[in-house]
Amino acid sequence: MQTSTAQVQQDPSRYRILTGDRPTGPLHLGHYFGTLQNRVRLQRLGVELFVVIPDYQVLTDRDTADRPAERAEELVLDYLAAGIDPERATIFTHSAVPALNQLMLPFLSLVSVAELQRNPTVKDEIVHSRQNSVSGLMLTYPVHQAADILSCKGNLVPVGRDQLPHLETARTIARRFNERYGAAVFTEPEALLSDAPLLLGTDGGKMSKSRGNAIALGMDEDHTARLIRGAKTDTERRIGYDPEQRPEVSSLLLLAALCEGGEPQKIAEEIGDGGSAALKRRVTEAVNECFRPIRARRAEFAADRAHLRAVLRAGNERANACADTTLAEVRQVMGMR
Amino acid sequence: MQTSTAQVQQDPSRYRILTGDRPTGPLHLGHYFGTLQNRVRLQRLGVELFVVIPDYQVLTDRDTADRPAERAEELVLDYLAAGIDPERATIFTHSAVPALNQLMLPFLSLVSVAELQRNPTVKDEIVHSRQNSVSGLMLTYPVHQAADILSCKGNLVPVGRDQLPHLETARTIARRFNERYGAAVFTEPEALLSDAPLLLGTDGGKMSKSRGNAIALGMDEDHTARLIRGAKTDTERRIGYDPEQRPEVSSLLLLAALCEGGEPQKIAEEIGDGGSAALKRRVTEAVNECFRPIRARRAEFAADRAHLRAVLRAGNERANACADTTLAEVRQVMGMR
Repeated sequence: MQTSTAQVQQDPSRYRILTGDRPTGPLHLGHYFGTLQNRVRLQRLGVELFVVIPDYQVLTDRDTADRPAERAEELVLDYLAAGIDPERATIFTHSAVPALNQLMLPFLSLVSVAELQRNPTVKDEIVHSRQNSVSGLMLTYPVHQAADILSCKGNLVPVGRDQLPHLETARTIARRFNERYGAAVFTEPEALLSDAPLLLGTDGGKMSKSRGNAIALGMDEDHTARLIRGAKTDTERRIGYDPEQRPEVSSLLLLAALCEGGEPQKIAEEIGDGGSAALKRRVTEAVNECFRPIRARRAEFAADRAHLRAVLRAGNERANACADTTLAEVRQVMGMR
Repeated sequence: MQTSTAQVQQDPSRYRILTGDRPTGPLHLGHYFGTLQNRVRLQRLGVELFVVIPDYQVLTDRDTADRPAERAEELVLDYLAAGIDPERATIFTHSAVPALNQLMLPFLSLVSVAELQRNPTVKDEIVHSRQNSVSGLMLTYPVHQAADILSCKGNLVPVGRDQLPHLETARTIARRFNERYGAAVFTEPEALLSDAPLLLGTDGGKMSKSRGNAIALGMDEDHTARLIRGAKTDTERRIGYDPEQRPEVSSLLLLAALCEGGEPQKIAEEIGDGGSAALKRRVTEAVNECFRPIRARRAEFAADRAHLRAVLRAGNERANACADTTLAEVRQVMGMR
C-alpha cells in the first residue's frame, strides 16, 4: 500500500495526490520542510495536486473555529508563496464542496464503530484534544478524510507514519464499496510515506501553529530573529549534533542545514565552541536567507486578496466538478436517482 | 418538550412538522393508522408539513438499499393516496438536499460519542439490525435526523414514545449550537407524542414492511382478503377483545374498529361465537371498504409517474431552499464564507 518517491518519478502523470491543512493558523517551517516543499517538488514532476482546506474539520479538536474563512485565505497565500502553481493544483475548502461531504453518508455505512474506535491516530488525537469528551466529528473524522481522497479519486496521499491508520480507513472504504456494489468505482489510495524532519518549536516542545513557538512562513525577518534569539538551547558552549541528548540545539542545527542545504553535523563543527549565540545567528541568517524569495512572493500575493479568492473559487469549481461526478457514480451503483 | 394535539389545534399555523419514512417498502395499515392519517389531519388543520424520505439512511440497518429510487416514488404514491396535499406539503429525499447533509458536520461536533452510544433507540435498533456490527451510520443516525428537523426549522415532530431519545438529540444540538455560537439560529423542536394503535402482522409478530405480514395501503382487495384469511388467530370460538391474553384476535378486532370507526369490544360482541372465520370476514370487509377510496386514488396517481416525480422535484426544490438558507445562517455565525 506504499509508493516510493522513485516510483512516482517514473510515471508522475499516473498519480493524483490529495493532501491539505486545517485552517487553524499560519503554516510554519515544520510544514514547509515536512510537506509543502515536497508538494511543490511533486507538482513540478507532473503529479496532479488536490489540496483540501478542511474548514468543517477545524471543530474536530476544538469547540469553535477562529475566523476559518480568513485562515483559509492565509493558507492559500502560504501555498502560492511556497511555489504551488494554482493553475495546475486544485485548492479547495470542504464547505464549498457539498458532494464530497455527502459521500460521508454511504461511507459511514461501510465502517463499524468498533473499527473507528480502534484507529490509533484518532485515539492519539483524542488525548491531545482541547475538548472534554470525544465528539462524533472526532470519531468519524477518518471517514470524512476518506471522502476527501475518494471524491476526487486521489490515488496517492503523502502521510507521516502516524497518519497511516487514516489512510487505511480510506482504503477499506474504497474496497468495501466496490465489493458491496459490485462495481469498480474506487481505487485504493496509496501512501507516499514522508519522514518529516523533526523540528522542535522554540520552546523545545512540538512545533505547533497555535503554541507561539513556531516560525511562520510569512513571518518578517526581525520577528524571525527575535524568536530564534529566545529559543531554548542548553548551557554547553561547544555546539554538537546529538538529537537524543541535546534535542533543542540539534533541532536548530537541523533547521540551518535544511535552509542551507547542508549537513547539521558539519554546521556544528563550523560553529565549534561559539555557543548558543553563534548558533542562533547562523540559524537566523540561514532561515531569513532561505525564505527571502518565498516571503517576497508572499507579500506580493498578500496585496491582491481578490486573486487569492479567485484561486480558491477556481479550485472549488474544479473540486465540485470532480466530487459531483464521483457522487453521481456512487448513487448510480447504489440505485439512487 | 411535548406538545399536545389540543395545543396544535389552537394555533396550527405556528407549527412546522418534520416527519418521514425510510424507502424500504410499501406503507401498510400500521403506518396509516399510526401516522399517515394523523399527518393528513394536521395538514388539514393548517400545520405545515415537511416529509423526508431518508434514502441514504436505508443503509442504517442493512447492507444495501433495494431500489431506493423506485421505493421513494412508491412512498410519494402512498402519501398522495392517503390524502397528503403536495401543494402544501414538502416531500423530499435526503439525497437531493446537500445542505441538509452538510449540517451533519457542525452537528457532529456538538454531541459526544458517549452520548450517541447511550441513546436507547439506537441501542434497540442495533439489536434488531440485519448487520453484524454497528456501523458509523447507525451510531450517527440521530445526528442526521437532527439535520432533517433543523434544516427546515421544523418545530414539531410526531413521535412514538420509543423515538423520544432521537428528538432529545435534536433538541440538544439546537440548544448547544445556539449557546456555542451565541446566536438564536435554532429553536428546540417539540414532540407531538402519538400513541399508535398496536396492530400486529398477520403472523402475530410486529407488522413490518419487509416480513410479508402486513396489509399494504396499495394492496388489492383479493390480496387483502387472502392475507386476512391466513392470519394467525386462536381456537376459541367465542370472539373477545383481550389484547393481553388474545393478542392476534384483538389486533384484528382493533383493525376492524379503526376502519369502521367503532369499538373493538362492540365488534367482538356482534361476532359473538361466529369464530375466526366470521371475524376475518368482518375485518376483510371493513378494511376493503375503508381503503376503497384511498386505493382508487392510489391507482389514479400510479398511472401518472411523471406527476409523482414532479411532486418530488417540487418538494426537493422547496427543501433545498430551506436547507440552503439554514446552512448559510449556520456558516455565517461560524465565521465561514
